[in-house]
Amino acid sequence: MTAAQPVPAPPSPCLPSRPLRVAVLGATGAVGQELLELLAERNFPVAELIPLASPRSAGQSLAWQGTSLVIRPVEASAFEGVDVVLASAGGSVSRQWAPVAARAGAVVIDNSSAFRMDPEVPLVVPEVNPEAAFAHRGIIANPNCTTILLTLVLAPLASRRAIRRVLVSTYQSASGAGARAMEELRQLSRTVLDGGEPVSEVLPHSLAFNLFLHNSPLQDNGYCEEELKMLNETRKIMGTPELRLSATCVRVPVLRAHSESVNIEFHEPFPVQEARALLAEAPGVELLENFEANRFPMPTDVTGRDPVAVGRIRQDLSDANALELWLCGDQIRKGAALNAIQIAELLIQGPAAGTGAVLPGGAA
Amino acid sequence: MTAAQPVPAPPSPCLPSRPLRVAVLGATGAVGQELLELLAERNFPVAELIPLASPRSAGQSLAWQGTSLVIRPVEASAFEGVDVVLASAGGSVSRQWAPVAARAGAVVIDNSSAFRMDPEVPLVVPEVNPEAAFAHRGIIANPNCTTILLTLVLAPLASRRAIRRVLVSTYQSASGAGARAMEELRQLSRTVLDGGEPVSEVLPHSLAFNLFLHNSPLQDNGYCEEELKMLNETRKIMGTPELRLSATCVRVPVLRAHSESVNIEFHEPFPVQEARALLAEAPGVELLENFEANRFPMPTDVTGRDPVAVGRIRQDLSDANALELWLCGDQIRKGAALNAIQIAELLIQGPAAGTGAVLPGGAA
Repeated sequence: MTAAQPVPAPPSPCLPSRPLRVAVLGATGAVGQELLELLAERNFPVAELIPLASPRSAGQSLAWQGTSLVIRPVEASAFEGVDVVLASAGGSVSRQWAPVAARAGAVVIDNSSAFRMDPEVPLVVPEVNPEAAFAHRGIIANPNCTTILLTLVLAPLASRRAIRRVLVSTYQSASGAGARAMEELRQLSRTVLDGGEPVSEVLPHSLAFNLFLHNSPLQDNGYCEEELKMLNETRKIMGTPELRLSATCVRVPVLRAHSESVNIEFHEPFPVQEARALLAEAPGVELLENFEANRFPMPTDVTGRDPVAVGRIRQDLSDANALELWLCGDQIRKGAALNAIQIAELLIQGPAAGTGAVLPGGAA
Repeated sequence: MTAAQPVPAPPSPCLPSRPLRVAVLGATGAVGQELLELLAERNFPVAELIPLASPRSAGQSLAWQGTSLVIRPVEASAFEGVDVVLASAGGSVSRQWAPVAARAGAVVIDNSSAFRMDPEVPLVVPEVNPEAAFAHRGIIANPNCTTILLTLVLAPLASRRAIRRVLVSTYQSASGAGARAMEELRQLSRTVLDGGEPVSEVLPHSLAFNLFLHNSPLQDNGYCEEELKMLNETRKIMGTPELRLSATCVRVPVLRAHSESVNIEFHEPFPVQEARALLAEAPGVELLENFEANRFPMPTDVTGRDPVAVGRIRQDLSDANALELWLCGDQIRKGAALNAIQIAELLIQGPAAGTGAVLPGGAA
């Protein structure tokens, strides 16, 4: 098996500044589609775009930038001469093909959870730990969607005062389970409105006018994988392996964009005005709070948009050292596709560029 | 103004054991309708049912138990000879008419927030603090829906080990904003499914495939009234005026039944198995947790049902003294109408009966 061979460190961690040959692995999925849109929207320097998918989808054509591209089956030869692979086809596909692509000389930016906790693989949110990206050996992991959104808000605060503990409850949209889950939510909602009995096939239960705890596999400690990802990935991205964090992840009948109710405990009081000022200036964050109008972030505010919206920043009534806040972010965009492309842009810009790191030791 | 006159303490705090003359104030609302259904379903001893409503609805007829009742306008004479008033017509109606009804000799069980924090008015969850009900002076307050559900789960745990701090994030259905909000959610969901632009009139924003922080008025501390109700009412019901609690209340696109993500900190570790055993036996609570099947409470599990379902009880990963858990309860039923009727039933049974109090000092 070629996959067992170690991947040598690349001669340079950067991507060349010429137009690049970009492969999108999983081009037909919800995140894959968003990757294609964002590559165009951001004028990413594409010399050639190579959509890759399973043999089932291969051969189909796909419109991009006014041209028609034929989807190619993923195979070793598909990575020859490719500069960067944006992978979003699930963990098993990534485990199989990311090392192959890396050995062929490509930089793989992987949206799956396959390599996130691998100590040799950087886990990167460009606004938070851009410097980590350059330590890659051909594979860089894109974090879990809820974690990306959370760290964008935690990092600016942690740059001022160390975080002691984080408690988070999520409100995760159907988009986090893919395009088919979004379509099922639409269909079953219509069933309920028409007086029928909704029967789910994609998600474990009907999400129509209903909600349920995230259904990822449960661990012995009673937490699901999604909740443990938030703990472990936040620790790795923030560079704080001892960070205390506990999460409750919930799937809600929203089509797109995740929300999070976040309680952050520090070792000392953190004045609300100071937190607000930090977040108003933080890269990738938009302060959306109008107390007079009782207007704070909603999923519809951020759908199809880049920033994570944050608001209702307030002193925890039960702990003088804690703050409470609320955030919403587009799960497919900043929670997945945008973050991956920002990592590629970072590698083009080089280590000196950064994109606004706010943690001590960041490249900004 | 008669409303300014003090209400004398009634000769007996109990309700007589004969069939009662029961007035339902706000009979046409979502909670009023549920009150009528539950009075029938529970074989509440009704001698005469008197539906009262605003002059706008008065004169309409209403089917109940195979008979047709004419809705009468609320006025002082309507309370003559009435034993118990179940009021669910909003705070201003209650402020005006509850003292009038109490002076006429009726016991008013009020669903609004008008009297909840009045030190002379008991605030009662029959499973938690039944003894408090008998200290009434004609008015007993029914707590806020989210608070009722929360205290049912906190009380059994607090009976074993004192609670240090509670953090809660809610997932509140449209039913909490009334029947018109439920209908708006249905209509606007259809609009979105049909590709239209949803425009809300009942709720401040469209709830269709969207969610938002609870829109009750904001206080200077950045919390909304709904969140402060959870703090203040929980303290009063539990008899723990120093309890530390901070809440984030969120409206979600669920038709009926509220959910809550709850973190409970004690002064010492609370073994999960012990908490689970206590909650499995707690009155008004149903343990719904199947780790093997990854199956925990959902709003659809409790819609139209009495108990609060609780599950995913687990050790907080960030604090050895804290537990995390998840609960769902029918907001209209146990969160409002059922609790009010249970209070009336308690007054019929008398102080010795209790309905399973679990707090120290409770009547059980």
